[in-house]
Amino acid sequence: MLTIVYLVAIAAEAMAGALAAGRRSMDFFGVTVIAFVTALGGGTLRDVILGHFPVGWTQHPAHVYLVISAGLLTTLVARYLHHLKRIFLVLDAMGLVAFSLIGSDVALQMSYAPPVVIMAGMITGIFGGVLRDVLCNQVPVVFRQELYAVVSLAVCLLFLLLREYGVADDLNTAISFSAGLTLRLCAVWRGWRLPTFSYRQRWD
Amino acid sequence: MLTIVYLVAIAAEAMAGALAAGRRSMDFFGVTVIAFVTALGGGTLRDVILGHFPVGWTQHPAHVYLVISAGLLTTLVARYLHHLKRIFLVLDAMGLVAFSLIGSDVALQMSYAPPVVIMAGMITGIFGGVLRDVLCNQVPVVFRQELYAVVSLAVCLLFLLLREYGVADDLNTAISFSAGLTLRLCAVWRGWRLPTFSYRQRWD
Amino acid sequence: MLTIVYLVAIAAEAMAGALAAGRRSMDFFGVTVIAFVTALGGGTLRDVILGHFPVGWTQHPAHVYLVISAGLLTTLVARYLHHLKRIFLVLDAMGLVAFSLIGSDVALQMSYAPPVVIMAGMITGIFGGVLRDVLCNQVPVVFRQELYAVVSLAVCLLFLLLREYGVADDLNTAISFSAGLTLRLCAVWRGWRLPTFSYRQRWD
Repeated sequence: MLTIVYLVAIAAEAMAGALAAGRRSMDFFGVTVIAFVTALGGGTLRDVILGHFPVGWTQHPAHVYLVISAGLLTTLVARYLHHLKRIFLVLDAMGLVAFSLIGSDVALQMSYAPPVVIMAGMITGIFGGVLRDVLCNQVPVVFRQELYAVVSLAVCLLFLLLREYGVADDLNTAISFSAGLTLRLCAVWRGWRLPTFSYRQRWD
Repeated sequence: MLTIVYLVAIAAEAMAGALAAGRRSMDFFGVTVIAFVTALGGGTLRDVILGHFPVGWTQHPAHVYLVISAGLLTTLVARYLHHLKRIFLVLDAMGLVAFSLIGSDVALQMSYAPPVVIMAGMITGIFGGVLRDVLCNQVPVVFRQELYAVVSLAVCLLFLLLREYGVADDLNTAISFSAGLTLRLCAVWRGWRLPTFSYRQRWD
Repeated sequence: MLTIVYLVAIAAEAMAGALAAGRRSMDFFGVTVIAFVTALGGGTLRDVILGHFPVGWTQHPAHVYLVISAGLLTTLVARYLHHLKRIFLVLDAMGLVAFSLIGSDVALQMSYAPPVVIMAGMITGIFGGVLRDVLCNQVPVVFRQELYAVVSLAVCLLFLLLREYGVADDLNTAISFSAGLTLRLCAVWRGWRLPTFSYRQRWD
């Protein structure tokens, strides 16, 4: 089940990435790179930091083709996509939660300690968007946006907690996924945000 | 033969990187870092993503010295370099093609699948410049420039195709190199570009 | 001894990172990420490039907690921190020197060649700040600031040199640390800078 969600999610992330590239008037190559990085960059970074080789997508050429196709398709249908705004929000939320769970699982399989497991989940869930924003030359939106990273954190924590209490992995995944999706959709719907920290003092 | 082209190319890339650093008024350390990243960053990223350790330049201190020397030398002769504009264009084209072939070869040796081989070639050929632009705080020029990444893609595809048909590696390298160099120089000469994708809609 | 210096230094770097995030009005998650990246990003990059797995902090959850706590604490006490400007300068200098020595040591243990050992030290000492600046969307300050990277270079060179002459590691560390700290503090005090390289010619 998580695999299907994952495939839908990387396609949706690739499309979101392609739109970001379009906002910078990139050419078709730039669109493809940004789509790829948005969809698969978080997982790549996780694998590299955990020393988990070979990196995920190198073993799944189909994922590469899917992401590139989704990115290029976006350039054709971009003008209609804003009608699908709500669907994208849901797909993005599903991707965030699925990526977080998959990322945690990779670190668990490698017997890393709990804080590393949580960070692996968060890197997978969030850093695709961070890398996209860095390549588009802007401050990553996830560092100042509504509740996004916290959802990833909550999902990973819940998953580890239930696992500690002996809940079977399949059930655990289903519960964590549903809870995370609900939290994220509520956050979008109600505009929940983390407090921000503004610092203006100059030290010179 | 490819080795000599490679050494000339990393020196030329280092010099181009140093000029980019000069456009940001960096100090000599910044110049050296940008020169290094432009010349060797693509190969480093490829090795890290493929899990190909130790990373190339760590085994070739001479490459490190060459790149640093070329970067620092550039600060001395910068005022004369625009007279060599055409030579730089050719060296840059040779570097792009040579980097792409070398990158593909590394992935082939590690038995990666064809799309990964192609991406390894493109990362080697292009991401030095991408990392340079990220460190210089601008949108990577390769995402909106004239035909550059496509040359890398074409070279890698041609190389894989001829290899599939049983062409010997040496001959294959010579053919792919010549074809790629010709394509790139034509693209610069005629100003060929990929179509760009501009997206202005706000979803809010 | 170096371990205690290291812990103090990563806490200080995390606090400096949190302040940089505050200058961009990030939310608490952004503050935490920038604090983490500033304190532990240089070491992570070093480990990944050297193929030194598992990456340092994944084996020391306490470091992760320390860095996150220091980052969040900063948001509470930020308004008082400029009174501690001098202490921060000293802590930052100690961190720079300690990170450089620790990074060199990791590469030495892995039997890398001297230029790689030096670069490992410099990456550890400096790239936390570079990654912070990239994520905050600005040209890395270390590429144009007063003598900073050169201190890292000098410390690594001195350490390798004394090692070559048979000085015991403990004594060597103490000497290199003191010399580097002195050099850095003098550089700050006297405003020593590297010459910069400005290049304005357009080639078009």
